[in-house]
Amino acid sequence: MKRIEALKKVAFEKDKVDGCLVFSSANLTWLTGFSGASAVLIPKHGECRVYVYGVNYAHAEAELGGFMVELVKRGEDLMVKIAKQAAASEIRKLAVDALNVESWRALVKSLGGEKKVAADNSFIRELRKVKDEEEIELMRKAAELTSEGMRAAYETVATGVKEYEVAAEIEYAMRKLGSSGNAFETIVASGACSAYPHGGCSDKKIREGDLVVVDVGATYKFYRSDMTRTLVAGKPSEKQKKLYQTVKTAQENALEAVKPNAKAKDVDAVARKIIADAGYGEYFVHNLGHGVGLEVHEPPTLSPESKDVLAAGNVVTVEPGIYLVGYGGVRIEDTVLVHRNGAQKLTNGPYALGKE
Amino acid sequence: MKRIEALKKVAFEKDKVDGCLVFSSANLTWLTGFSGASAVLIPKHGECRVYVYGVNYAHAEAELGGFMVELVKRGEDLMVKIAKQAAASEIRKLAVDALNVESWRALVKSLGGEKKVAADNSFIRELRKVKDEEEIELMRKAAELTSEGMRAAYETVATGVKEYEVAAEIEYAMRKLGSSGNAFETIVASGACSAYPHGGCSDKKIREGDLVVVDVGATYKFYRSDMTRTLVAGKPSEKQKKLYQTVKTAQENALEAVKPNAKAKDVDAVARKIIADAGYGEYFVHNLGHGVGLEVHEPPTLSPESKDVLAAGNVVTVEPGIYLVGYGGVRIEDTVLVHRNGAQKLTNGPYALGKE
Repeated sequence: MKRIEALKKVAFEKDKVDGCLVFSSANLTWLTGFSGASAVLIPKHGECRVYVYGVNYAHAEAELGGFMVELVKRGEDLMVKIAKQAAASEIRKLAVDALNVESWRALVKSLGGEKKVAADNSFIRELRKVKDEEEIELMRKAAELTSEGMRAAYETVATGVKEYEVAAEIEYAMRKLGSSGNAFETIVASGACSAYPHGGCSDKKIREGDLVVVDVGATYKFYRSDMTRTLVAGKPSEKQKKLYQTVKTAQENALEAVKPNAKAKDVDAVARKIIADAGYGEYFVHNLGHGVGLEVHEPPTLSPESKDVLAAGNVVTVEPGIYLVGYGGVRIEDTVLVHRNGAQKLTNGPYALGKE
Repeated sequence: MKRIEALKKVAFEKDKVDGCLVFSSANLTWLTGFSGASAVLIPKHGECRVYVYGVNYAHAEAELGGFMVELVKRGEDLMVKIAKQAAASEIRKLAVDALNVESWRALVKSLGGEKKVAADNSFIRELRKVKDEEEIELMRKAAELTSEGMRAAYETVATGVKEYEVAAEIEYAMRKLGSSGNAFETIVASGACSAYPHGGCSDKKIREGDLVVVDVGATYKFYRSDMTRTLVAGKPSEKQKKLYQTVKTAQENALEAVKPNAKAKDVDAVARKIIADAGYGEYFVHNLGHGVGLEVHEPPTLSPESKDVLAAGNVVTVEPGIYLVGYGGVRIEDTVLVHRNGAQKLTNGPYALGKE
């Protein structure tokens, strides 16, 4: 309920809207702690309503103590039902967070015109940028599980092992310790495929001397985590060591720059400059990082174009990389909390280019 | 390219639109075989273009042989870029498959008005309803992996084991054999939670006599699968046996009704009647089934309201259930191919209420 109050405060303070309608799955989970709701209607005055289909109704009734739960019956139109309630709650203008165009049109029609609706996905996503103590504890746990998964990767990566076999061991390690699932599709990309930032995970066997990019994340009670290490199967070459050291230095310096009130684009620039100075500028083909929480990619964004300013309670990735097409890639990534004293690493796994 | 031709045929035959713009991830994968594209533009005349951000560009260049790959550079606006190309390709009206309302508005603005765009997600989703031989082979493989996962569940479910520990063994078994990931979040719901169709998977220990609903799916080369069994930890009670037998009979009879030209709602009705006749009608709180493929829920739908008619090449789930809130639930589900001779089960695991 604390979160509903926080939303009401930011959404209604300027009097531009007097109701919020939430559809995004992450926003619904953040507001209700339950993942089976289809929508929540928050009027400026009166009670919030959670809309749930029959398949999830009994579960919602059991989990959603403080909310009024409305069953969407077979044949009932959710948008019509919501529009009726909006009228009953005397809502003049409704902010809607996330809808596909067909549903948007159905809602506009039910409400009686575009003037009654504003598409605005910023309220809750902005609030979600700063994690509270409870969220940070869950993210610490997700990050610990992720670090254990990475330890399993270090134990498994070897010449002749298939990429997906490494993924199997990583995910098993995380799951056995209580992860509720992968935060995203695990990447174990070896050899030439390591030069693709989203290089996937195939049935290819890792070859002697291959760079292997391992990108994994556990989830704990809906909260996600994200971590990458790059390993070499066998003995690293001088070139591999140089690439690795460049990326590691870029990450270390960027981590130093992470603190409250730092501009996100300045943090990105720190890492980008180190990589450029080493002669690899054009091979760092993605942003330095992104927020993590209920979604694996959420605000703030660490990129050259970002307008975000970091604040205590943000949780972001710091993940510089160099990708040489035809040769291989190196990325090092941690999930870090922006603490009042600076970056606090939540993921903490091995940190070497191989088993050593 | 065969699929592009099939799309052009259905999309352009009535001359209502002369371009298709694809954003849905499943549709993009179906068209290109690659999962890293952001959009594909298919003009009636001229070459198709695949739009890719820098992070995936090298990978796209390597994988997308037959397509023209366009890099979306830093700072470039994807919608503006597409609108320019649509004008160059002399597209008068563009069908767009899936967009959120903000992106839709940006596109409409770039194209110069709503009259130039039609929101239509049916073309490719309709084509995807009928799987070709290649897709059926991938789905067979995904279903085999799923069946192996279910065998692991039968070996693991026991009094005192935590729900997530069962999930760990299931997912490990599937992954080790080559699954590329879970088709959806694994459900291992025991005791009272088994009465929630989406009962999740917690750190709760399974108790003696608990009903345990296990709902799992492997993915193989982007194609998904879906299967549920209900087990009892220990010796099933008479009531549990009765519930199980009712659901099993409902599934068997519904499977008999699955054939080309059958109305989807009639198949649903077969199962629903058996459950209602046994006195549990109000406790079957969801549809009988759904299509499966690149997405775990896609057309056709087996429900009382469905307008779908089954066709050879559809792949659907058949999953009746009974959910007694406060007591527990039973669901039995298989993924089946609609074959010209009737239903062909793709998932084939154990089929008993316990280890026996």
